Amino acid sequence: MFRVGIVGGTGYTGVELLRLLVSHEDAEVAVLTSRAESGRRVDDLFPNLRGRCDLSFTEPDVAVLAECDIVFFATPHNVAMNTVPELLEAGARVLDLSADYRIRDAELWSHWYGEPHASPGLLEGAVYGLPEVNRAAIAGAQLVACPGCYPTSVQLGFLPLLEEGLVDTDSLIASSASGVSGAGRQAKVDHLLSEASDSFKAYGVAGHRHLPEIEQGLGDIAGRPVQVTFTPHLLPMVRGIHSTLFARLREPRADLQALFEARYCDEPFVDVLPAGAYPQTRTVKGANQCQLAVTVPQDRDTVVVMSVIDNLVKGASGQAVQNMNIMLGLREDAGLQQVGLLP
Amino acid sequence: MFRVGIVGGTGYTGVELLRLLVSHEDAEVAVLTSRAESGRRVDDLFPNLRGRCDLSFTEPDVAVLAECDIVFFATPHNVAMNTVPELLEAGARVLDLSADYRIRDAELWSHWYGEPHASPGLLEGAVYGLPEVNRAAIAGAQLVACPGCYPTSVQLGFLPLLEEGLVDTDSLIASSASGVSGAGRQAKVDHLLSEASDSFKAYGVAGHRHLPEIEQGLGDIAGRPVQVTFTPHLLPMVRGIHSTLFARLREPRADLQALFEARYCDEPFVDVLPAGAYPQTRTVKGANQCQLAVTVPQDRDTVVVMSVIDNLVKGASGQAVQNMNIMLGLREDAGLQQVGLLP
Amino acid sequence: MFRVGIVGGTGYTGVELLRLLVSHEDAEVAVLTSRAESGRRVDDLFPNLRGRCDLSFTEPDVAVLAECDIVFFATPHNVAMNTVPELLEAGARVLDLSADYRIRDAELWSHWYGEPHASPGLLEGAVYGLPEVNRAAIAGAQLVACPGCYPTSVQLGFLPLLEEGLVDTDSLIASSASGVSGAGRQAKVDHLLSEASDSFKAYGVAGHRHLPEIEQGLGDIAGRPVQVTFTPHLLPMVRGIHSTLFARLREPRADLQALFEARYCDEPFVDVLPAGAYPQTRTVKGANQCQLAVTVPQDRDTVVVMSVIDNLVKGASGQAVQNMNIMLGLREDAGLQQVGLLP
Amino acid sequence: MFRVGIVGGTGYTGVELLRLLVSHEDAEVAVLTSRAESGRRVDDLFPNLRGRCDLSFTEPDVAVLAECDIVFFATPHNVAMNTVPELLEAGARVLDLSADYRIRDAELWSHWYGEPHASPGLLEGAVYGLPEVNRAAIAGAQLVACPGCYPTSVQLGFLPLLEEGLVDTDSLIASSASGVSGAGRQAKVDHLLSEASDSFKAYGVAGHRHLPEIEQGLGDIAGRPVQVTFTPHLLPMVRGIHSTLFARLREPRADLQALFEARYCDEPFVDVLPAGAYPQTRTVKGANQCQLAVTVPQDRDTVVVMSVIDNLVKGASGQAVQNMNIMLGLREDAGLQQVGLLP
Repeated sequence: MFRVGIVGGTGYTGVELLRLLVSHEDAEVAVLTSRAESGRRVDDLFPNLRGRCDLSFTEPDVAVLAECDIVFFATPHNVAMNTVPELLEAGARVLDLSADYRIRDAELWSHWYGEPHASPGLLEGAVYGLPEVNRAAIAGAQLVACPGCYPTSVQLGFLPLLEEGLVDTDSLIASSASGVSGAGRQAKVDHLLSEASDSFKAYGVAGHRHLPEIEQGLGDIAGRPVQVTFTPHLLPMVRGIHSTLFARLREPRADLQALFEARYCDEPFVDVLPAGAYPQTRTVKGANQCQLAVTVPQDRDTVVVMSVIDNLVKGASGQAVQNMNIMLGLREDAGLQQVGLLP
Repeated sequence: MFRVGIVGGTGYTGVELLRLLVSHEDAEVAVLTSRAESGRRVDDLFPNLRGRCDLSFTEPDVAVLAECDIVFFATPHNVAMNTVPELLEAGARVLDLSADYRIRDAELWSHWYGEPHASPGLLEGAVYGLPEVNRAAIAGAQLVACPGCYPTSVQLGFLPLLEEGLVDTDSLIASSASGVSGAGRQAKVDHLLSEASDSFKAYGVAGHRHLPEIEQGLGDIAGRPVQVTFTPHLLPMVRGIHSTLFARLREPRADLQALFEARYCDEPFVDVLPAGAYPQTRTVKGANQCQLAVTVPQDRDTVVVMSVIDNLVKGASGQAVQNMNIMLGLREDAGLQQVGLLP
Repeated sequence: MFRVGIVGGTGYTGVELLRLLVSHEDAEVAVLTSRAESGRRVDDLFPNLRGRCDLSFTEPDVAVLAECDIVFFATPHNVAMNTVPELLEAGARVLDLSADYRIRDAELWSHWYGEPHASPGLLEGAVYGLPEVNRAAIAGAQLVACPGCYPTSVQLGFLPLLEEGLVDTDSLIASSASGVSGAGRQAKVDHLLSEASDSFKAYGVAGHRHLPEIEQGLGDIAGRPVQVTFTPHLLPMVRGIHSTLFARLREPRADLQALFEARYCDEPFVDVLPAGAYPQTRTVKGANQCQLAVTVPQDRDTVVVMSVIDNLVKGASGQAVQNMNIMLGLREDAGLQQVGLLP
Repeated sequence: MFRVGIVGGTGYTGVELLRLLVSHEDAEVAVLTSRAESGRRVDDLFPNLRGRCDLSFTEPDVAVLAECDIVFFATPHNVAMNTVPELLEAGARVLDLSADYRIRDAELWSHWYGEPHASPGLLEGAVYGLPEVNRAAIAGAQLVACPGCYPTSVQLGFLPLLEEGLVDTDSLIASSASGVSGAGRQAKVDHLLSEASDSFKAYGVAGHRHLPEIEQGLGDIAGRPVQVTFTPHLLPMVRGIHSTLFARLREPRADLQALFEARYCDEPFVDVLPAGAYPQTRTVKGANQCQLAVTVPQDRDTVVVMSVIDNLVKGASGQAVQNMNIMLGLREDAGLQQVGLLP
């Protein structure tokens, strides 16, 4: 039984890690830290865990965490980058769900996050935890940066097109929409039910922090710089991301359905729908799945890809567990067999 | 591996049975019938099952069903009562999720369902599948009538009070509220999102079909006839039932918190919250749990009990699997370890 | 044109007052105060008012407010009771939407609100602004305390039964449910969309601040003390209150449908539905209406009343405008002709 | 007082017409037809109209309708095109909210609607009822085809860019999302609350009936054929359309904010938000408003326009009343002063 530590377990990615890990046969959560809730039982904060998790939050302690086989950071950005160096030195392996190690260029990170990076020396060695791209590197990594939710859905959708060089790379468009849980468990007026329900809006259109991560990832895949117009929207619901992706086809159309199916046929958590079917977010609610569809409307020269995930599962905690399984040499789907909750 | 048959798998209790059973270690779904969808893959209708269930719907066939160790009926009322007699004769054991065998009095059934009962001779022998009351009888039953969703939440809430004779039995009040999935996967204008969302209303106040079931069950528990004013409401959401129960205390108040905790301490799927905490439906979403709280406001003589379940799990398919486990001698929580999906 | 002042216009009752008053033919908002937002245009905060309201928030100033014909307080409790004395002395007439002047007994107020009352001398003279009960007194009042949202729905529902002495007054039960806007525009984790949507729960069961107001109001109507078990619930939606009321009939049943229709036939904003129809909250969304239904299930001895309002309109700002119209001698429905937004 | 007839008043555009017209000072609904509901009071079907509308549905009768000053068709497509010819001959003026007269090319209409057009001779003379483009023609028209909901939001958003020739016209992208009320009051499984809430999906990606209408309208504006990739999505809410529009800038960027403000400064129902603000659908809920924002992310060469309307108001019944006002020489905003219902 592998021992897992979780730093910062009071947010939505934290409780989601716990939901997944209490059913994991080969891993158990040994330590769960929170400065704010230290001493409180986790099932008092999250009563869905009653009877399934006896842990209480504790103060973070590097020595204790370092004894775990894996340490997850389920914290806002700006926490991991200050603590991870010490943990790595102590020999721990780290899965960071925050943004701290996703962007290799410290200056670019600094530009988008408004402060200097605290441990830029680790950026080069951190592995970007998108298994469909970096599986081998993840297996051997000491520090894995789990992708953001939007970037996961966007990259998996564009990937086959970019790998094959089929589309213009300077006019990619990603019109994405996310449930409110992506904003975390923070008390903000904008995310009150009275403000965010029964409504839909774009936000961060002029520049969202996931943009540089998306362009870095797609650039790696394409082998050249790419330009993406990324427009996130807020959905009046809790879980789910839907990305609608547009690109101009460069060449006479290939059989894109076959291309997508071939690319993902061995991926346990990417599912290409049959031609003519479109994904919906509810189908993957609670499940570590990305469902994709690809089509070329009116047989013109714009390809449309639809990509859905549960932002808290394949977009965060589920993907983190998938990375953990790869790092520990377990079955990649261990603990990740949940079926989407439909209806 | 026990073999399971499901009659009528195209509704919400059907897909929920499948969600639970594809993760069950000791049971597998061998047959899934639907006249309307015969020949269609189930994961085409319910894409959350893609990759997890290879079955297609077939025409119902008694001989094939009778070879299963257990046959579930996930049909509207009026189906099971016509087919079950033949199945029982062929030696099958049956779990009926519909209302056909819940009420022992054929005339009473007929009054509420508007037609004669097709197999009244089976009513006396059918076991009412509320494990917290009838566990032993369920274990040996050939025909189990799974309780309705509202009746489950109401009975588990009143049960300790009635067993101890602490409250007036002629003035019980149940003010319940259900998500729309309780109305099934039927195309009705009233249950369109445009009609049912952003709104709340009572319905069936003059008389709901679950009333006689509730009064029969509570009467059995109390050992005398009871009268319940049962007022169901429609919630603008998919899953969940919340019953708020009111009763007049007969005697100087006992320690009701201790009473509830003692009554349910050995029950795997009934959870009495700590004093001062109230349940909410989302905590048990997707989980086979009933969460309860009891309080006496202002120390007066009216006791209030709050009871929540997921209507599709502990209120239907989860409870059916729980009954199946009891009937087959399996661990009662086999396949029922799902943690509530929060948020 | 009457001149209106609004103290504290940054919350939901504030913006709702503005929505109603910008269409009012005989009143115009002259002053709108907020310490926090002083200097900001109101249509910057509430863009639904763009093109309809040119006001900016200003610092509260008693002299300026006193020049208005009517001053509304759309503030949290504990604000009005400190400022109103000075305003009254300056000759202003005040409509307080907060709880400060609703309860006549200063000690009782103090018990529920956890602090001494700042102007207890005004409590006796404040008129409780439920027009269906106190119309004449409101017309001549200098200070009107607008009722709470739950108390409005509960009192209008029980009123005909209590006036006629038809029910036991010591076992009244009110099972009410409110949309989240009732909690105001405050940043609290519990009211995030991710927390409050897709769920239903009771709260304040042991004692809610609206209980003493309800018992005072119903006691006035009944002419004797009453006891109410009041159980509020939180609905996963924005606007609307539904109260389901239960009482034991004292006497052989009268024709309650006729009683309710007769009692309210001249009331412009209380609508008794035809027998057999039940109200739903969406029907009155945005409208200053209370819709009622009454029934006696199974012809037993418990009467059930259903009462719906929009908590922000008939439960707050609409009722305040109705009171203003009465105080100023205008048509009672001036500015209150909005039709419910359905769907 | 002008007399109005409504053909087919049982759907959402019908009840919305009534909501708007009962408050209209210069028009009254004289006739309301429905074959299915003939004889039924309209406030029985739509209880939000209780006390405000005494009409009952009647069988459609051309002679009676022809006596009205204006006749609205609030019917599904395929109704108006069969009845309108007779009405026009009888001298009536018609506002058709359906799709029957929106597309000038009968063959194209036939291709998308799957049947021959019943009165192709009227197509040329029908005026497309987008006041911001065709105000003068509308004023004198006998037959006005009210635009579809998506086309309204898309055309108003692209209009200033196309009029000025600033963008490529062969790679326009419209990623739109609509609340479920756009699908009408039809009993379909896909639009049940249990199916459509808590989820988001694209639909009609391969080809939606609003595509030819959009391309015709934008082509008229641009003065040349245009190609649009139009991707509609279904939002888990009732009212509101949000269109996110993408286009490639042809020329060095002009001041697009100033361009949009100048183009719409005299339009009563199009509101360009200040730079940096983005619209949300709830702001215009219940109001006849289109709110727009324009931005060029990262100062690259893709312009993004956001456009919101209430699909039942500016996207249907409100725009129809706006057209009626123009046709009858009334103030264009008569009866259309509703403020958006926020929250």
